[in-house]
Amino acid sequence: MEEKEKYMLRAIELAKENVLSEDGGPFGAVVVKNGKIIAEGKNLVTANDDPTAHAEIVAIRKACEALKSHQLAGCEIYASCEPCPMCLGAIYWARPAAVYYAASRQDATRAYFDDSYIYRECNTEPEKRKIPFIQMQRDKAIEAFLRWMENEQRNPY
Amino acid sequence: MEEKEKYMLRAIELAKENVLSEDGGPFGAVVVKNGKIIAEGKNLVTANDDPTAHAEIVAIRKACEALKSHQLAGCEIYASCEPCPMCLGAIYWARPAAVYYAASRQDATRAYFDDSYIYRECNTEPEKRKIPFIQMQRDKAIEAFLRWMENEQRNPY
Repeated sequence: MEEKEKYMLRAIELAKENVLSEDGGPFGAVVVKNGKIIAEGKNLVTANDDPTAHAEIVAIRKACEALKSHQLAGCEIYASCEPCPMCLGAIYWARPAAVYYAASRQDATRAYFDDSYIYRECNTEPEKRKIPFIQMQRDKAIEAFLRWMENEQRNPY
Repeated sequence: MEEKEKYMLRAIELAKENVLSEDGGPFGAVVVKNGKIIAEGKNLVTANDDPTAHAEIVAIRKACEALKSHQLAGCEIYASCEPCPMCLGAIYWARPAAVYYAASRQDATRAYFDDSYIYRECNTEPEKRKIPFIQMQRDKAIEAFLRWMENEQRNPY
């Protein structure tokens, strides 16, 4: 069996196990570096009372802890389902080399998850979203960015 | 001063303080329920080696812990900058009543952050993204969803 298939089967196994453990939704993910799984995650939203505890987020946080880095340079992420916008964002901030996924956002939608809806909302103007996004006091917030840009000690990411 | 302005000024204050503390980027957020700030967050990406530790994610996780719930029903989130796709996704999964933000994604881009880029990638077909998103073994992952849908004890979110 190809290596990639083994990693993906592990992510899918975590997803299936999670239906039985009832810790959260049917989602699993693993992070691989240099041919080795360095972190695993399963969905812990309901077990941990944490809406951000998707399998990918859990795995990314563990992998970064293992690497002592906020970047996943040279890593691959295997997810049992296409990452939602939250997880896609986390992936882009972590900057792995590639992402492999099995089920699609449409499959997640058929299992009653909001993935497709959130992708649409992500691409909707803030003021037209189902959850109202309202801008205010922009001028005061800009000052924080100016301070950041002026600080030569800043640690960009 | 209107209440909303006070909450936002606190989020902006957290953002400004963070430039000095050098724990992460110039971003702050607070979660408000029934006229009271129940959680605060500032960006801790570099301090914690955690690419997911954006101010909104930190504040949402703390607020959920305080409420012992994976949902932020009846809450408002105040963020010093427009939430990135990761934070937007987290917000939709937490389902607060409203979001207020100050600086825009374009302002973040001018301060060298990837927010606008990640919004574009979110709206790009998976196989055309800058980080390759590759689908494989969909059939095997579907089984996890079927098990989930068949489990009458499931805890949806």
